Amino acid sequence: MPVAPIILRPIGRVGSTLVDPAEAPKQASEGAPEAWLVFDDAVAGGLIDLRAGDRIVVLTWLDRARRDVLSVHPRDDLTAPRKGVFSTRSADRPNPIGIHSTEIVAVDGLRVLVRELEAVDGTPIVDIKPALD
Amino acid sequence: MPVAPIILRPIGRVGSTLVDPAEAPKQASEGAPEAWLVFDDAVAGGLIDLRAGDRIVVLTWLDRARRDVLSVHPRDDLTAPRKGVFSTRSADRPNPIGIHSTEIVAVDGLRVLVRELEAVDGTPIVDIKPALD
Repeated sequence: MPVAPIILRPIGRVGSTLVDPAEAPKQASEGAPEAWLVFDDAVAGGLIDLRAGDRIVVLTWLDRARRDVLSVHPRDDLTAPRKGVFSTRSADRPNPIGIHSTEIVAVDGLRVLVRELEAVDGTPIVDIKPALD
Repeated sequence: MPVAPIILRPIGRVGSTLVDPAEAPKQASEGAPEAWLVFDDAVAGGLIDLRAGDRIVVLTWLDRARRDVLSVHPRDDLTAPRKGVFSTRSADRPNPIGIHSTEIVAVDGLRVLVRELEAVDGTPIVDIKPALD
Protein backbone atom coordinates (compact mmCIF):
# COMPACT_ATOMS: atom_id res chain seq x y z
CA MET A 1 0.00 0.00 0.00
CA PRO A 2 1.64 3.30 -1.02
CA VAL A 3 1.67 5.75 1.83
CA ALA A 4 2.11 9.52 1.77
CA PRO A 5 5.27 10.64 3.56
CA ILE A 6 4.77 11.48 7.20
CA ILE A 7 6.05 15.00 7.75
CA LEU A 8 6.53 16.34 11.27
CA ARG A 9 6.05 20.07 11.69
CA PRO A 10 7.98 21.49 14.64
CA ILE A 11 5.77 23.44 17.06
CA GLY A 12 8.70 25.20 18.72
CA ARG A 13 12.32 24.91 19.78
CA VAL A 14 14.25 24.19 22.96
CA GLY A 15 16.13 27.15 24.43
CA SER A 16 18.90 25.77 26.65
CA THR A 17 22.35 26.47 27.98
CA LEU A 18 23.26 23.01 26.61
CA VAL A 19 24.77 23.52 23.18
CA ASP A 20 27.14 20.59 22.65
CA PRO A 21 25.44 17.20 22.26
CA ALA A 22 28.66 15.54 23.44
CA GLU A 23 28.33 17.33 26.77
CA ALA A 24 24.60 16.86 27.22
CA PRO A 25 23.64 14.37 29.93
CA LYS A 26 22.21 11.14 28.56
CA GLN A 27 19.20 11.33 30.87
CA ALA A 28 17.46 14.32 32.42
CA SER A 29 18.23 13.05 35.92
CA GLU A 30 21.96 13.22 35.25
CA GLY A 31 22.40 16.95 35.74
CA ALA A 32 20.32 18.43 32.92
CA PRO A 33 19.50 22.13 33.35
CA GLU A 34 16.19 23.92 33.28
CA ALA A 35 15.27 24.90 29.73
CA TRP A 36 12.75 27.02 27.89
CA LEU A 37 10.28 25.57 25.45
CA VAL A 38 9.73 28.36 22.92
CA PHE A 39 6.59 27.76 20.91
CA ASP A 40 5.51 29.06 17.53
CA ASP A 41 2.66 31.53 17.57
CA ALA A 42 0.70 29.19 15.29
CA VAL A 43 0.13 26.71 18.16
CA ALA A 44 -0.72 29.23 20.89
CA GLY A 45 -4.27 27.88 21.09
CA GLY A 46 -2.95 24.49 22.17
CA LEU A 47 -0.97 25.89 25.10
CA ILE A 48 -3.72 27.65 27.00
CA ASP A 49 -4.10 25.07 29.76
CA LEU A 50 -0.43 24.52 30.56
CA ARG A 51 0.35 25.60 34.13
CA ALA A 52 3.32 25.70 36.48
CA GLY A 53 3.48 22.38 38.33
CA ASP A 54 2.07 20.31 35.46
CA ARG A 55 4.03 17.13 34.81
CA ILE A 56 4.40 16.77 31.06
CA VAL A 57 6.09 14.71 28.38
CA VAL A 58 7.97 16.72 25.76
CA LEU A 59 8.54 15.06 22.40
CA THR A 60 11.47 16.39 20.41
CA TRP A 61 13.14 15.64 17.11
CA LEU A 62 16.80 14.84 17.86
CA ASP A 63 18.10 16.46 14.72
CA ARG A 64 21.77 15.72 15.43
CA ALA A 65 21.16 11.96 15.63
CA ARG A 66 22.06 9.33 13.05
CA ARG A 67 19.16 7.47 11.47
CA ASP A 68 21.13 4.61 9.90
CA VAL A 69 22.04 2.96 13.22
CA LEU A 70 20.30 -0.23 14.42
CA SER A 71 22.63 -1.32 17.22
CA VAL A 72 24.79 0.57 19.70
CA HIS A 73 27.13 0.08 22.61
CA PRO A 74 24.91 1.18 25.53
CA ARG A 75 26.04 4.50 26.97
CA ASP A 76 28.89 4.64 24.44
CA ASP A 77 30.76 2.01 26.48
CA LEU A 78 32.74 0.23 23.79
CA THR A 79 33.41 -2.68 26.15
CA ALA A 80 29.68 -3.36 26.51
CA PRO A 81 28.02 -5.70 24.00
CA ARG A 82 26.05 -4.05 21.21
CA LYS A 83 22.31 -3.85 21.76
CA GLY A 84 19.48 -3.35 19.29
CA VAL A 85 18.50 0.33 19.41
CA PHE A 86 14.88 -0.46 20.25
CA SER A 87 16.10 -1.83 23.60
CA THR A 88 18.04 1.37 24.35
CA ARG A 89 17.44 5.08 24.72
CA SER A 90 20.13 5.94 22.17
CA ALA A 91 19.41 9.11 20.20
CA ASP A 92 20.70 7.30 17.12
CA ARG A 93 17.78 5.26 15.70
CA PRO A 94 15.61 5.23 12.56
CA ASN A 95 13.22 7.90 13.88
CA PRO A 96 15.10 9.91 16.52
CA ILE A 97 12.17 11.15 18.57
CA GLY A 98 13.15 12.20 22.08
CA ILE A 99 10.77 11.62 25.01
CA HIS A 100 11.45 13.85 28.00
CA SER A 101 9.43 13.60 31.22
CA THR A 102 9.60 16.89 33.05
CA GLU A 103 7.62 19.47 34.99
CA ILE A 104 6.58 23.02 34.14
CA VAL A 105 8.26 25.65 36.31
CA ALA A 106 6.71 28.75 34.73
CA VAL A 107 4.61 29.84 31.78
CA ASP A 108 5.27 33.15 30.03
CA GLY A 109 3.11 33.48 26.93
CA LEU A 110 4.64 31.32 24.22
CA ARG A 111 7.57 30.38 26.47
CA VAL A 112 7.37 27.55 29.01
CA LEU A 113 10.19 26.89 31.50
CA VAL A 114 10.72 23.23 32.44
CA ARG A 115 12.96 21.35 34.85
CA GLU A 116 15.78 19.08 33.78
CA LEU A 117 15.75 18.81 30.01
CA GLU A 118 18.67 17.01 28.36
CA ALA A 119 17.91 18.26 24.81
CA VAL A 120 20.38 20.77 23.36
CA ASP A 121 19.61 24.34 22.38
CA GLY A 122 17.62 24.60 19.16
CA THR A 123 16.20 21.08 19.24
CA PRO A 124 12.80 21.05 17.48
CA ILE A 125 9.79 20.33 19.71
CA VAL A 126 7.08 18.25 18.06
CA ASP A 127 4.51 17.58 20.80
CA ILE A 128 3.61 18.09 24.47
CA LYS A 129 1.40 15.67 26.37
CA PRO A 130 0.34 15.23 30.00
CA ALA A 131 2.70 12.90 31.91
CA LEU A 132 2.15 9.18 31.41
CA ASP A 133 0.52 7.64 34.47
CA MET B 1 16.81 29.40 9.66
CA PRO B 2 15.43 27.18 6.87
CA VAL B 3 15.03 23.62 7.99
CA ALA B 4 14.74 20.45 5.93
CA PRO B 5 11.40 18.73 6.35
CA ILE B 6 11.36 16.09 9.05
CA ILE B 7 10.15 12.86 7.49
CA LEU B 8 9.19 9.90 9.67
CA ARG B 9 9.78 6.49 8.15
CA PRO B 10 7.48 3.83 9.60
CA ILE B 11 9.38 0.82 10.96
CA GLY B 12 6.30 -1.42 11.00
CA ARG B 13 2.56 -1.58 11.48
CA VAL B 14 0.12 -2.54 14.22
CA GLY B 15 -1.80 -5.75 13.64
CA SER B 16 -4.94 -5.61 15.79
CA THR B 17 -8.53 -6.74 16.02
CA LEU B 18 -9.38 -3.06 16.51
CA VAL B 19 -10.32 -1.62 13.15
CA ASP B 20 -12.71 1.24 13.86
CA PRO B 21 -11.12 4.27 15.57
CA ALA B 22 -14.55 5.20 16.93
CA GLU B 23 -14.66 1.93 18.86
CA ALA B 24 -11.06 1.95 20.04
CA PRO B 25 -10.63 2.60 23.76
CA LYS B 26 -9.16 6.01 24.51
CA GLN B 27 -6.53 4.52 26.82
CA ALA B 28 -4.92 1.10 26.83
CA SER B 29 -6.26 0.36 30.31
CA GLU B 30 -9.83 0.74 29.09
CA GLY B 31 -10.17 -2.65 27.50
CA ALA B 32 -7.63 -2.55 24.68
CA PRO B 33 -6.72 -5.94 23.23
CA GLU B 34 -3.37 -7.58 22.75
CA ALA B 35 -1.88 -6.63 19.40
CA TRP B 36 0.99 -7.59 17.13
CA LEU B 37 3.74 -5.18 16.22
CA VAL B 38 4.79 -6.27 12.73
CA PHE B 39 8.17 -4.84 11.82
CA ASP B 40 9.81 -4.24 8.48
CA ASP B 41 12.70 -6.49 7.66
CA ALA B 42 14.91 -3.41 7.25
CA VAL B 43 14.91 -2.79 11.05
CA ALA B 44 15.44 -6.41 12.15
CA GLY B 45 18.85 -5.51 13.57
CA GLY B 46 17.25 -3.12 16.04
CA LEU B 47 14.91 -5.75 17.48
CA ILE B 48 17.42 -8.37 18.57
CA ASP B 49 17.25 -7.61 22.31
CA LEU B 50 13.48 -7.41 22.69
CA ARG B 51 12.24 -10.16 25.04
CA ALA B 52 8.93 -11.33 26.50
CA GLY B 53 8.35 -9.46 29.73
CA ASP B 54 10.10 -6.24 28.61
CA ARG B 55 8.12 -3.11 29.42
CA ILE B 56 8.31 -0.83 26.40
CA VAL B 57 6.97 2.38 24.96
CA VAL B 58 5.59 2.11 21.44
CA LEU B 59 5.47 5.30 19.38
CA THR B 60 2.93 5.33 16.58
CA TRP B 61 1.76 7.76 13.94
CA LEU B 62 -1.99 8.20 14.42
CA ASP B 63 -2.75 8.52 10.74
CA ARG B 64 -6.50 8.94 11.16
CA ALA B 65 -6.11 12.00 13.39
CA ARG B 66 -6.71 15.64 12.45
CA ARG B 67 -3.68 17.92 12.53
CA ASP B 68 -5.51 21.26 12.41
CA VAL B 69 -6.98 20.98 15.91
CA LEU B 70 -5.58 23.00 18.84
CA SER B 71 -8.36 22.55 21.40
CA VAL B 72 -10.79 19.75 22.16
CA HIS B 73 -13.56 18.76 24.51
CA PRO B 74 -11.79 16.21 26.72
CA ARG B 75 -12.94 12.66 26.02
CA ASP B 76 -15.38 13.98 23.40
CA ASP B 77 -17.66 15.24 26.21
CA LEU B 78 -19.30 18.25 24.57
CA THR B 79 -20.44 19.54 27.97
CA ALA B 80 -16.83 19.76 29.18
CA PRO B 81 -14.92 23.00 28.56
CA ARG B 82 -12.47 22.96 25.67
CA LYS B 83 -8.85 22.36 26.58
CA GLY B 84 -5.67 23.09 24.68
CA VAL B 85 -4.56 19.85 23.01
CA PHE B 86 -1.13 19.93 24.68
CA SER B 87 -2.91 19.40 28.03
CA THR B 88 -4.79 16.37 26.69
CA ARG B 89 -4.10 12.97 25.17
CA SER B 90 -6.33 13.68 22.18
CA ALA B 91 -5.18 11.98 18.98
CA ASP B 92 -6.07 15.19 17.14
CA ARG B 93 -3.06 17.54 17.45
CA PRO B 94 -0.44 19.12 15.16
CA ASN B 95 1.84 16.04 15.24
CA PRO B 96 -0.34 13.04 16.12
CA ILE B 97 2.30 10.79 17.65
CA GLY B 98 0.83 8.10 19.90
CA ILE B 99 2.70 6.97 23.03
CA HIS B 100 1.69 3.55 24.28
CA SER B 101 3.18 2.00 27.42
CA THR B 102 2.87 -1.76 27.23
CA GLU B 103 4.64 -5.06 27.82
CA ILE B 104 5.97 -7.68 25.42
CA VAL B 105 4.10 -10.99 25.62
CA ALA B 106 5.99 -12.87 22.92
CA VAL B 107 8.56 -12.34 20.17
CA ASP B 108 8.32 -14.25 16.89
CA GLY B 109 10.94 -13.00 14.45
CA LEU B 110 9.74 -9.69 13.05
CA ARG B 111 6.47 -9.92 15.00
CA VAL B 112 6.14 -8.85 18.62
CA LEU B 113 2.97 -9.46 20.63
CA VAL B 114 2.13 -6.79 23.24
CA ARG B 115 -0.52 -6.36 25.91
CA GLU B 116 -3.25 -3.76 25.73
CA LEU B 117 -2.66 -1.55 22.72
CA GLU B 118 -5.35 0.96 21.83
CA ALA B 119 -4.03 1.72 18.31
CA VAL B 120 -6.13 0.43 15.41
CA ASP B 121 -5.06 -2.13 12.84
CA GLY B 122 -2.59 -0.78 10.30
CA THR B 123 -1.35 2.13 12.43
CA PRO B 124 2.27 2.94 11.49
CA ILE B 125 4.87 2.25 14.19
CA VAL B 126 7.71 4.78 14.30
CA ASP B 127 9.79 3.80 17.35
CA ILE B 128 10.14 1.42 20.30
CA LYS B 129 11.94 2.40 23.50
CA PRO B 130 12.40 0.86 26.92
CA ALA B 131 9.69 1.95 29.39
CA LEU B 132 10.15 5.34 30.99
CA ASP B 133 11.21 5.01 34.61
